[in-house]
Amino acid sequence: MSLSINVSELIDLFPGAIQSGQTSIGKLDGIANLRDAKVGDLSFLGNAKYKSQVEPCNASVILLPNDFQGKPSSNQLFIRVENPSRALAQVCELLEGKLYPAPAPGIHSTAFIEESASIHHSSSIGAFSYVGHESIIGPNCTINTHCHIGMGTTIGEGSVFYPGVKLLARCQIGKQVILNAGVVVGSEGYGFDQGDGSHQKIPHLGKVVIEDNVEVGANTCIDRARFEETKIGQGTKLDNLVQVGHNVKIGKNCLIVAQVGVSGSVLIEDEVIVGGQAGFAGHLKVGKGAKIAGQAGITKDVEPGAFLKGNPALPFHLAQRISVLQRKLPDLFNRFAQEKSKE
Amino acid sequence: MSLSINVSELIDLFPGAIQSGQTSIGKLDGIANLRDAKVGDLSFLGNAKYKSQVEPCNASVILLPNDFQGKPSSNQLFIRVENPSRALAQVCELLEGKLYPAPAPGIHSTAFIEESASIHHSSSIGAFSYVGHESIIGPNCTINTHCHIGMGTTIGEGSVFYPGVKLLARCQIGKQVILNAGVVVGSEGYGFDQGDGSHQKIPHLGKVVIEDNVEVGANTCIDRARFEETKIGQGTKLDNLVQVGHNVKIGKNCLIVAQVGVSGSVLIEDEVIVGGQAGFAGHLKVGKGAKIAGQAGITKDVEPGAFLKGNPALPFHLAQRISVLQRKLPDLFNRFAQEKSKE
Amino acid sequence: MSLSINVSELIDLFPGAIQSGQTSIGKLDGIANLRDAKVGDLSFLGNAKYKSQVEPCNASVILLPNDFQGKPSSNQLFIRVENPSRALAQVCELLEGKLYPAPAPGIHSTAFIEESASIHHSSSIGAFSYVGHESIIGPNCTINTHCHIGMGTTIGEGSVFYPGVKLLARCQIGKQVILNAGVVVGSEGYGFDQGDGSHQKIPHLGKVVIEDNVEVGANTCIDRARFEETKIGQGTKLDNLVQVGHNVKIGKNCLIVAQVGVSGSVLIEDEVIVGGQAGFAGHLKVGKGAKIAGQAGITKDVEPGAFLKGNPALPFHLAQRISVLQRKLPDLFNRFAQEKSKE
Repeated sequence: MSLSINVSELIDLFPGAIQSGQTSIGKLDGIANLRDAKVGDLSFLGNAKYKSQVEPCNASVILLPNDFQGKPSSNQLFIRVENPSRALAQVCELLEGKLYPAPAPGIHSTAFIEESASIHHSSSIGAFSYVGHESIIGPNCTINTHCHIGMGTTIGEGSVFYPGVKLLARCQIGKQVILNAGVVVGSEGYGFDQGDGSHQKIPHLGKVVIEDNVEVGANTCIDRARFEETKIGQGTKLDNLVQVGHNVKIGKNCLIVAQVGVSGSVLIEDEVIVGGQAGFAGHLKVGKGAKIAGQAGITKDVEPGAFLKGNPALPFHLAQRISVLQRKLPDLFNRFAQEKSKE
Repeated sequence: MSLSINVSELIDLFPGAIQSGQTSIGKLDGIANLRDAKVGDLSFLGNAKYKSQVEPCNASVILLPNDFQGKPSSNQLFIRVENPSRALAQVCELLEGKLYPAPAPGIHSTAFIEESASIHHSSSIGAFSYVGHESIIGPNCTINTHCHIGMGTTIGEGSVFYPGVKLLARCQIGKQVILNAGVVVGSEGYGFDQGDGSHQKIPHLGKVVIEDNVEVGANTCIDRARFEETKIGQGTKLDNLVQVGHNVKIGKNCLIVAQVGVSGSVLIEDEVIVGGQAGFAGHLKVGKGAKIAGQAGITKDVEPGAFLKGNPALPFHLAQRISVLQRKLPDLFNRFAQEKSKE
Repeated sequence: MSLSINVSELIDLFPGAIQSGQTSIGKLDGIANLRDAKVGDLSFLGNAKYKSQVEPCNASVILLPNDFQGKPSSNQLFIRVENPSRALAQVCELLEGKLYPAPAPGIHSTAFIEESASIHHSSSIGAFSYVGHESIIGPNCTINTHCHIGMGTTIGEGSVFYPGVKLLARCQIGKQVILNAGVVVGSEGYGFDQGDGSHQKIPHLGKVVIEDNVEVGANTCIDRARFEETKIGQGTKLDNLVQVGHNVKIGKNCLIVAQVGVSGSVLIEDEVIVGGQAGFAGHLKVGKGAKIAGQAGITKDVEPGAFLKGNPALPFHLAQRISVLQRKLPDLFNRFAQEKSKE
């Protein structure tokens, strides 16, 4: 990583921390784990089980827990803090602000804003972005380049839209929401009446509601509801290229990994974790805290706390056991044939 | 749904309908099914089996079939029509026009149109859209914001492009086609000659042809053909995030659900239905009316009318039977071991 | 294919070739294989096993190997070259230049370029593209419409970005790289610290490095690394809608087919081939030259040269054998039940 951290800035970041060793190091130019760190790097002891890696570590600065026993080598600085992982996160946030500076507030000269739109003066609208009629963008939002903000939408405080996000008419975005590049929110639901062999479009009059602290990965698509709303609950994180069908409700603090497909009208309760490429048939209910393994195919309701795998999905341990037995099928068939021939 | 329907408008929509009950209700502000409807909602009896839900229903207005027996409660209006589902669709189309009004004809001040392009005066071109050389856009089309209309393309009457559609050079779009946000039509096919360990690009000189009444879901990709054309047949509906490879031909009135992958040169005949996340290996033929379950992996030609499931795909009922038996494998192995130990 | 090739141009393309037959054909208007070619088409004998198809072939011009025995019919031209497949590729490249002409060098009047950006005078920047601070675009690049070139990025000589590519801050693109429409490079990685039931964002400070001659399919997403770099090796080809997670390293000359998902920190060595919709769990190593069948689910390290299939993935032939035996499970259960009843 070609970045630059002043050690004095680091020290300022943790006013209550206990330093020992060389404090006049100047600049750091990388972050690495204890084993890989070189001179000039920052490292950290995030988990006590790696304690023995501290002594041989070459990092110039190491973040350590308050109760860590041991001394820095020469030209090395130890900074003792309550929680080294949190401390590292603070360092990373500081650096993130430098590497990916939020654009200055204001509307880019090339953006187009409809007159009836309302944009808080602390927010920024990037090049070639379009903001539609009667939309409302709250404070401290960053709308990057090439975004489409449809008419009648609302966007809460501190939300960030990366380039090329399409937020379609009437959808609602909470506070501190992050939509990565190319995300589509509010596309038409996939629903048709079967006619005389042809498929008649069912108009989709609803919207999408995304609550606070949600993050949505690049090129993910969330369809609007038929009448009411498709909803993504507070704190839920969707990865890239996920499909969320019309009328779906996803609860709070769920993790939905890349390329998952959630069919229309599925209800996913809070704290559900779904592995990559898993799929859900329509109109299912997935109970609170359930875990779904990657590539699983879910075609029935899932009990709260269940852990499922495979297609058709089975309880994880049964699925594992069957996988092992499948590998023994050639042997079973052989033995069965031998038994028969003995008779 | 925060919308507003004047009951007088409703009555005007069905001039031949028979009303009974309270006609001075004023406004409705929602649509819901019989069980969920509240005062102020419109509901409907779409299927005779829900007949018993009409009496306790709280909706202010209910669309009912002509032969329905029963009376409205006080402050309730019954509207009897030939087909309540169709009638509801008519209401929805009316509302859709209000919620998602088509932009006025004309070219947005920020759009860029090459001089040799031809755009019908009844069509609209949105903000920041680009229309390339010698492209032809027919009457009553809506090209939304940030669209790329490549050179030499044609777009038929009444087609709608949502924001950020990329229609690449020389592709042809029929009438009444809907391309959702972020759709890519005409990307380079994925084909390479194997050289000395490296992969030499095969130029793709063909195009994509999309026939009338096709709909394509958000962020779906359709590659152009090597020499001739990749084709999506009339009335076929593709969902979001679908992959259609080079030279593929999809017939008429097919339904291809989200995240399906169709490899190069596959031929899918008319009226085929494919569940989400299913995949097709290259150069296969899928017969008319076949049904493919979600997540199925198709590696061989499929007979017309077949219904397949699983990977490798098997006839649906055999696949179901094997799924059941797999769950009994632990028991079978145990019993086999017991038999052996008895000997 | 509605295109136009002057036969005289064809002849000029192969100065050392031996012609026989009618040289005054004028124009060709299509390319087809020997069996399908009509009068007016160009065809070619790419593989000696199709030799017998040359005599009945109706093509007006046929590219043949130098040692081909046989004579053209009247009004037909044979052109003998060393390698007809290569010769056809040359013809296709000539046509590609006509059908998809690279835009003239220069910056479109509607593009927006930050002052500190550096763009080589031989490159073109399309309508509504944005080029960020301190980015560097090398010679002979084509940046199409609606592209976002983030700050601090570099793009090597001869690279082509189709419409709507989003290249986020600090990412590096090599020479002769092709990014198809809608590609996202450098999106935030999907990584969170688990707190008190909620998920705390882990800042992603790294970047994406794409080496020379890489091609990336439409709407594919490549996340940036946490600290260092996500990397796509020289000559590797990614198809459409592929997901590449943070910190992934993909080696040289790999083929990754559509809708594959590669989880964070996976290491894929050189010359690996991955079929469509396959998925990799995080932190795995996939050895050089491994082949992974479509839809496979890889949850463990893969040996160099291995060929795996299924989920859980097994060696290809074992997976095939088990598939066959699974189909016999109903029979096995029946026979086992009969054995029991006999006792």
